[in-house]
Amino acid sequence: MKKNEHILLGHGSGGQLTQRLIERIFLPHLSNQFLEELEDSSIFHLRDGVYAFTTDSYTVFPLFFPGGDIGSLAISGTVNDLVVSGAKPLFISAGFILEEGFPIDDLERIAMSMKEVLRKSEALLVAGDTKVVEKGKGDGIFINTAGVGILLDGVKLSVNRIKTGDDIIVTGSVGDHGASLVIARGDLGIESDLKSDCAPLNSLILPVLERYKDKIHWMRDPTRGGVATVLNEAARSRGLDFLLFEEKIPIKDEVGALCEMLGFDPLYLANEGKAVLIVDNEISEELLTQLKSHPLGKDAKVIGKVTEGTQGRLFLETVSGGTRVLDSLIEDQLPRIC
Amino acid sequence: MKKNEHILLGHGSGGQLTQRLIERIFLPHLSNQFLEELEDSSIFHLRDGVYAFTTDSYTVFPLFFPGGDIGSLAISGTVNDLVVSGAKPLFISAGFILEEGFPIDDLERIAMSMKEVLRKSEALLVAGDTKVVEKGKGDGIFINTAGVGILLDGVKLSVNRIKTGDDIIVTGSVGDHGASLVIARGDLGIESDLKSDCAPLNSLILPVLERYKDKIHWMRDPTRGGVATVLNEAARSRGLDFLLFEEKIPIKDEVGALCEMLGFDPLYLANEGKAVLIVDNEISEELLTQLKSHPLGKDAKVIGKVTEGTQGRLFLETVSGGTRVLDSLIEDQLPRIC
Repeated sequence: MKKNEHILLGHGSGGQLTQRLIERIFLPHLSNQFLEELEDSSIFHLRDGVYAFTTDSYTVFPLFFPGGDIGSLAISGTVNDLVVSGAKPLFISAGFILEEGFPIDDLERIAMSMKEVLRKSEALLVAGDTKVVEKGKGDGIFINTAGVGILLDGVKLSVNRIKTGDDIIVTGSVGDHGASLVIARGDLGIESDLKSDCAPLNSLILPVLERYKDKIHWMRDPTRGGVATVLNEAARSRGLDFLLFEEKIPIKDEVGALCEMLGFDPLYLANEGKAVLIVDNEISEELLTQLKSHPLGKDAKVIGKVTEGTQGRLFLETVSGGTRVLDSLIEDQLPRIC
Repeated sequence: MKKNEHILLGHGSGGQLTQRLIERIFLPHLSNQFLEELEDSSIFHLRDGVYAFTTDSYTVFPLFFPGGDIGSLAISGTVNDLVVSGAKPLFISAGFILEEGFPIDDLERIAMSMKEVLRKSEALLVAGDTKVVEKGKGDGIFINTAGVGILLDGVKLSVNRIKTGDDIIVTGSVGDHGASLVIARGDLGIESDLKSDCAPLNSLILPVLERYKDKIHWMRDPTRGGVATVLNEAARSRGLDFLLFEEKIPIKDEVGALCEMLGFDPLYLANEGKAVLIVDNEISEELLTQLKSHPLGKDAKVIGKVTEGTQGRLFLETVSGGTRVLDSLIEDQLPRIC
């Protein structure tokens, strides 16, 4: 396989060309004792326990953006879905759907990003699959990842554990991923240093869960639909009202300016390296200190609280002192954000 | 959601439209106690044991074909990957990549096929994800499935357990899936009653594994690349020669005729409801009887044996009495077969 080669339909045949692609691109970057068996399934021992299983497909556009690419996103996203469920990520699978003509150098760059995030997440890629579709029937590359993790002892995360008086915490500035993708698409001709927050949250969140266990009541990663959408779902599902304080929500200047220009609300923009926690207010100060001591949590803030209202709605107390409802998103402001 | 509706970009937003699609199409057909939680990860207890984990993406064209569709294929394929690894399928995830404009009625038909195969496979769909790409950036629908299964006690399947004198068994006629797709594509203007063999193999294979345990040395489902490709890989990896007897290989008349017409070799055509087993020759007669007592195994045959040769090659003794090498496939005769 030389430089400037491109994906052929035969790379998805399951025959020698597929084999060569695996040997040239995937194994050198992603191999481990499980993956190198190259069997139809990966086999491993699990001890008695409670496990989490999740999946997500990634169709992000563009494939490469400041702060990440579809590869780092696909691993971070599945790692984060496990982490916010209270699970330590163990095993991950990756399914690639490649478009005929896709540059093999780009595939290698994506594999290298996956490797780096896998290393940080301490999870193993144990199963993979590659399919190729004809030119014009895909869009470069789509990746699906699925993941298995083991639940931490004593952690009890559930919308039903949210109670009046709980604090709502976000681990950092909101909307960075969504905003950086708008800029990366280049239609606006804006230059910016803004980067996606795409990152695996295991090293930030798992120690906090281990320490505060059931004092943390609920957690989500606010990806598609952003902070407002995940909190809306939780409020509705729990039947309690949540109140956010606009002045406390961490928003980067670049994100705020972009949103003002385009009429977007940063609370609905996607994040790929943030968590929203609802916690017992007794621990929130201490927990915030712990989050802030980690690079991924340095801008963590208490942004709201669970009130006594029982309409199941999300309210925002604006900087000007008024209060308005933050409704759930009907459709995304931006398609193909992840 | 009314009849004749189509997928919109907003159905992939993660907001209310996504929610409606889930409530209207996925939950009615696919729900269970795990899926209806609609959390980012599904949570379940696993007992101490050895587990298998696998993934596959499905890009089959056409989406609907005689004997199945992309939905039944996506579940059968992942179930079969677990089964041939010696594992009882437990949990399955499904990630959908939909093209804007895809008919929602077709999506519902696919969900219903998935439901039916899940029922037969006794596995639970526990995690899902839906993404939508713009018209012209996909091809109707792609599905990724991943699966977790538990290994049966006492089963030891490995290429390293294959030994000289072992029998090679196929559970039924070869090439049905590949041939039926060629016909379904319609370019040839052939009419035929041939159907894909697409089926979950758990009820055929798991009882056999439970009974014969480590007397079964190796097993694979010969999908992309067919029987010749999986046996080639096994022979090369084990460093022993395998010999197939052409006259013993079960091939349906329609498949044979099609292959003759197009110059295809049925041994390289995809199967989606067959397994190839390499077993201790002491048990092969009894095992064959058990396979034949099941509708999915009624045409099972011993088609070859492991010889004393150590070149790691696959040979075919032809009907005319000659012997030739069956090489591994370089690229598939047919793209997008699964």
